[in-house]
Amino acid sequence: MSSAAAVGALHRKAATLGKFVVRMTASAGAGHPSSALSLAHLTAHLMYRQMRWDPGNPWHPTADRLVLSEGHAVPIIYAALADLGATVGRSREQSVALHAADLDQLRALDSVLDGHPNPAEGVPFFDAATGSLGQGLSVAAGLALAARLDGSPRRVFAIVGDGESREGQVWEAVDFIVDHKLNHVCAVFNCNGQGQAGLVSQQQSAERLSAKLEAFGWKVTTIDGHDPGAIEQAFARVGESERPLAVVARTVKGWGAEQLRKGNWHGKPPKKDDLPAIERSIDQTVAPYAAAEELPRPRVPAEPRSAPQRGDPRGLAWPPFADAMSAAGFGAAVAANALGTRKAYGAALRAAGAILPQLVVLDADVSNSTFSELFAAAYPQRFFECKIGEQNMASVAVGLSAGGLIPVCNTFAKFWSRALDQIELAAISRANIKLVGSHAGITPHSDGPSQMGLCDVAFFRSLSTVPADDRESPLGWFFQPSDAVSAFHCTRLMLEARGLCYMRTHRPDAPLLYAPDTRFEAGGFHVRGAGEHLALVASGYMVHVAAAAADLLGRHGVRATLIDAYSLPIRSAALTHAVVRAGGKAVVVEDNYGGGLGAAVAEIAAASGKFRACCASVRRIPKSTVREDEILTYCGLSAQQIADDCLGLLERKGAE
Amino acid sequence: MSSAAAVGALHRKAATLGKFVVRMTASAGAGHPSSALSLAHLTAHLMYRQMRWDPGNPWHPTADRLVLSEGHAVPIIYAALADLGATVGRSREQSVALHAADLDQLRALDSVLDGHPNPAEGVPFFDAATGSLGQGLSVAAGLALAARLDGSPRRVFAIVGDGESREGQVWEAVDFIVDHKLNHVCAVFNCNGQGQAGLVSQQQSAERLSAKLEAFGWKVTTIDGHDPGAIEQAFARVGESERPLAVVARTVKGWGAEQLRKGNWHGKPPKKDDLPAIERSIDQTVAPYAAAEELPRPRVPAEPRSAPQRGDPRGLAWPPFADAMSAAGFGAAVAANALGTRKAYGAALRAAGAILPQLVVLDADVSNSTFSELFAAAYPQRFFECKIGEQNMASVAVGLSAGGLIPVCNTFAKFWSRALDQIELAAISRANIKLVGSHAGITPHSDGPSQMGLCDVAFFRSLSTVPADDRESPLGWFFQPSDAVSAFHCTRLMLEARGLCYMRTHRPDAPLLYAPDTRFEAGGFHVRGAGEHLALVASGYMVHVAAAAADLLGRHGVRATLIDAYSLPIRSAALTHAVVRAGGKAVVVEDNYGGGLGAAVAEIAAASGKFRACCASVRRIPKSTVREDEILTYCGLSAQQIADDCLGLLERKGAE
Repeated sequence: MSSAAAVGALHRKAATLGKFVVRMTASAGAGHPSSALSLAHLTAHLMYRQMRWDPGNPWHPTADRLVLSEGHAVPIIYAALADLGATVGRSREQSVALHAADLDQLRALDSVLDGHPNPAEGVPFFDAATGSLGQGLSVAAGLALAARLDGSPRRVFAIVGDGESREGQVWEAVDFIVDHKLNHVCAVFNCNGQGQAGLVSQQQSAERLSAKLEAFGWKVTTIDGHDPGAIEQAFARVGESERPLAVVARTVKGWGAEQLRKGNWHGKPPKKDDLPAIERSIDQTVAPYAAAEELPRPRVPAEPRSAPQRGDPRGLAWPPFADAMSAAGFGAAVAANALGTRKAYGAALRAAGAILPQLVVLDADVSNSTFSELFAAAYPQRFFECKIGEQNMASVAVGLSAGGLIPVCNTFAKFWSRALDQIELAAISRANIKLVGSHAGITPHSDGPSQMGLCDVAFFRSLSTVPADDRESPLGWFFQPSDAVSAFHCTRLMLEARGLCYMRTHRPDAPLLYAPDTRFEAGGFHVRGAGEHLALVASGYMVHVAAAAADLLGRHGVRATLIDAYSLPIRSAALTHAVVRAGGKAVVVEDNYGGGLGAAVAEIAAASGKFRACCASVRRIPKSTVREDEILTYCGLSAQQIADDCLGLLERKGAE
Repeated sequence: MSSAAAVGALHRKAATLGKFVVRMTASAGAGHPSSALSLAHLTAHLMYRQMRWDPGNPWHPTADRLVLSEGHAVPIIYAALADLGATVGRSREQSVALHAADLDQLRALDSVLDGHPNPAEGVPFFDAATGSLGQGLSVAAGLALAARLDGSPRRVFAIVGDGESREGQVWEAVDFIVDHKLNHVCAVFNCNGQGQAGLVSQQQSAERLSAKLEAFGWKVTTIDGHDPGAIEQAFARVGESERPLAVVARTVKGWGAEQLRKGNWHGKPPKKDDLPAIERSIDQTVAPYAAAEELPRPRVPAEPRSAPQRGDPRGLAWPPFADAMSAAGFGAAVAANALGTRKAYGAALRAAGAILPQLVVLDADVSNSTFSELFAAAYPQRFFECKIGEQNMASVAVGLSAGGLIPVCNTFAKFWSRALDQIELAAISRANIKLVGSHAGITPHSDGPSQMGLCDVAFFRSLSTVPADDRESPLGWFFQPSDAVSAFHCTRLMLEARGLCYMRTHRPDAPLLYAPDTRFEAGGFHVRGAGEHLALVASGYMVHVAAAAADLLGRHGVRATLIDAYSLPIRSAALTHAVVRAGGKAVVVEDNYGGGLGAAVAEIAAASGKFRACCASVRRIPKSTVREDEILTYCGLSAQQIADDCLGLLERKGAE
């Protein structure tokens, strides 16, 4: 910063924003003013001097972006947006300029200014919801990857709290950014030294963080986060280094407001009566600096070199099933009638790569198990190896989605359960991401329970009970194909659907159940057979076991209809019709702990009272077994045990 | 290591273990021999020379412990256990010595040798299930904390894979160990350079890991993991430094077995026909070293200084409710009839501290929100601040439980969803841990959806559908108290129950609904009122809203029974009886996404066909609101909306 006037201008701007912060949180009676104040100068620098963006067009395709990972500090950003008259609104059509008076509506029902960054409520300055900590740097990485794919000069800034940087995901992101040479990401660590319940650990001090970041391979600058000159200098070479840049800033929680610096002031608004004194305190803090003209407006971003490639994922010219499988090397497996859902999924993904330019695929070091490797081999520039860091992978996908891409993330079904917080934030962000969990249920029988996805269905089924904003589709679609053909079609459905989707695939090879051109629909199911005694409802691998159970029942004169419920939320009326037609009794079979398909069917049955339904799920912790039939029997899910369950519901004797 | 003979002895032992590894994985037709072989020397050193333990008594209270975080390498440990004739078995009564011949049963249904470390299946050498990566160092930290509390000289070793160390949780644990000065933890990083799908990132190279660990404040020694002398020297001063010790070992994946070193050999057993050649290769690798006598037996551990304090958590002399609340400073709140469940829970925890010596409490920097701070103030030596690292907190608790303590972990309900993988592993470990999620559901209305636990009930309800090993209790109990009295009693039930428990508490203060001495039981519920038209089933905060709905219904002549279902799994027969008595129709209300209490009730209804049940849950993504009533209405859960749902089920007109 060249002049005293410029220094003064940044101080004055910090004070202006700070006063907005205390006023709006006092007005809301909630919020985190002290955290926000610690970012006063950094925000002023980033949003007024550093970032190449246009407040009037927050959707500009090549503008720099800012991810506020420590989401509770959001009032400082809102202050700047209002001061700049930035555009807000849920869509371009509804957009308006934010005014200072709007800040009083912080956290109000009808306000776009949610308690934490929440683009879906109408602040398009943000790309993703944050507030559950540790996720923002990963989002920034995803935005940066998308920018690189699009040839955009966009830079991405992320602000991370010091206490927040205890979250392991932050370090997954730090590694990922180095691996992928995302030197156009700049991370700002806000070291105000105070957490919620006490002081931040010395493990997260500015010194320690700097040493850590250096050791992780970043270029690090440690500064006083309230010194305009130091700030200017620190950010001068963003994106120009061989390494990503981290700015570690020592800051003061409650900067400027003496009253908010007593004790550990966190998450507490000032009282309205105290506002005059607090504002005086802020004014006095900057009084020594030269009064200066307004800061120069941010530079307009460069125009995009070319429009990024995006197509409508619906109505694409998919190759026929057989061609897609052959192209992936599975022609012989199809001919032999033995192809696992994970393999057919990989082949489908590869086929989609050719027709959907915005499709990108991520994996966490298991691409040779999930079969995402088929896509990676064909489209290496659109495949991102995340290594063993599932939380980062999920949040990177949110950033990629915000960049207009359609990311498909892959790992074992089991390991998604460490990233469900991130997935919930993706849902709040209305991110268009697709998650695939392979080796689902008890099929990795040899490896044992630490590798088995057993609660995943309950979790994703929970998301599927919530309608999306359009009230027509759900917040999350769930798919569980039973054979190669359905895996192929469910992959297509997943890519066509807007929003969060989760698909389970299974380890074993299995026979094909469907003709290649069978019609599949999100929320649909297939009825197999026309037994009139009861319905067996299953999905995924259990469809094969349920079919064997139906055969056993047939030997006892019981005619069962098999319903392959490959997608949730399932259509209630149609399912009720099918079960009633099959005798009004259903046994639902699932290779996971309870609360998945069984709960979905039971809720329909209980609400209408039109049929009965019993659930057979995994009712003990599995262990390793050498053979597949052993694990099924161990968990009470062999064909024989299912048949016995059916006879029990029918109040007949055991099948033996 | 002083002599060539000793060097030779370690090489020979590595070879012996290595040959067991290839044989057992060939026999099982599964497993990860190449990963196991990379640990041949390190395992031989730790288990034969370094660790003070007794193979004949794996339950010895002061013996050193080993956590194999990269669980897929477990065959090398099994090899050593068999070679040493170590004791295995699900209990002391069933224990036997493991023999070399038993190794052929790796992964078999009836074998104790599960595919990944799994103490519950009968290998008490391990303290926790591992295999889902990144969790073992946290478990080791928990074991070390327990040892310190007990005054035990126990040291704890943890082996972490290089690829595995990408998991952020590893770095949460690294920080935690420094924060708590757990210098009797020794971490071994196994840098064989190969992951599953490809090479390990350079971010996890031995050099980079060493630099990172140094930057995190550890003492680091980098060695050749197949050099007996270097290994001996590296471990010579474990626990004697001012800093925890990390040994970063460069190793060879498939060490000794030339045949398993071609390409990237991961997770693939050798063919039986190839065994002779592979064993020859291993023998030849160690041929240059002096044949030596057997390694000296491990030293016997020191005796415990005194028996650790443990009491039966059942039948304790709890203070009366009013006394517990007063002691915590809530006497006035009780008198004013306004006390939140989170506060009453904190008071109960504090009361338990006085009567349950093995109770320990953990929090993730929100103890002033969860009210675990009440325990922390009274029992600071049994309170462990984990800072903002929930995954580490969950796995530390598993280690504490293995050390005989009863850990209660606290954070917002929302943030548990990033540690569900760890919680599943805790369940597999049969760990006796208690999790409390505050600010559950939509009650943190001002903060918005990023702070709201909305899928937590579906997840934990899924665990509650699985019976524990005793087939009498569930794998996980779920509690959701509605008022201060029930929070007090549910805290007691949670501490009395053996195994995993999850309790939800809520943000707002609320009136007391129960007399102080009301009886509460795990799996129980309370019936309030005796309406005969329908039952309203709710729990937690929604009990209050449902009560208001019942009042509204009363004005329309509809008499509702209110069922406070504070615990899952709920008793089916009793619930059915209660709902049938209340008219055979139930509306279930929950302040979370679907799949929780509603699914539990619906499954009971659908199975028996004896009553109908409809579920009212959060059916859109919430946002910030200033007032509590606004968020209820926004989510369709106001008293009025619930009353309308009830009238709908009764096929009457709207309540207005």
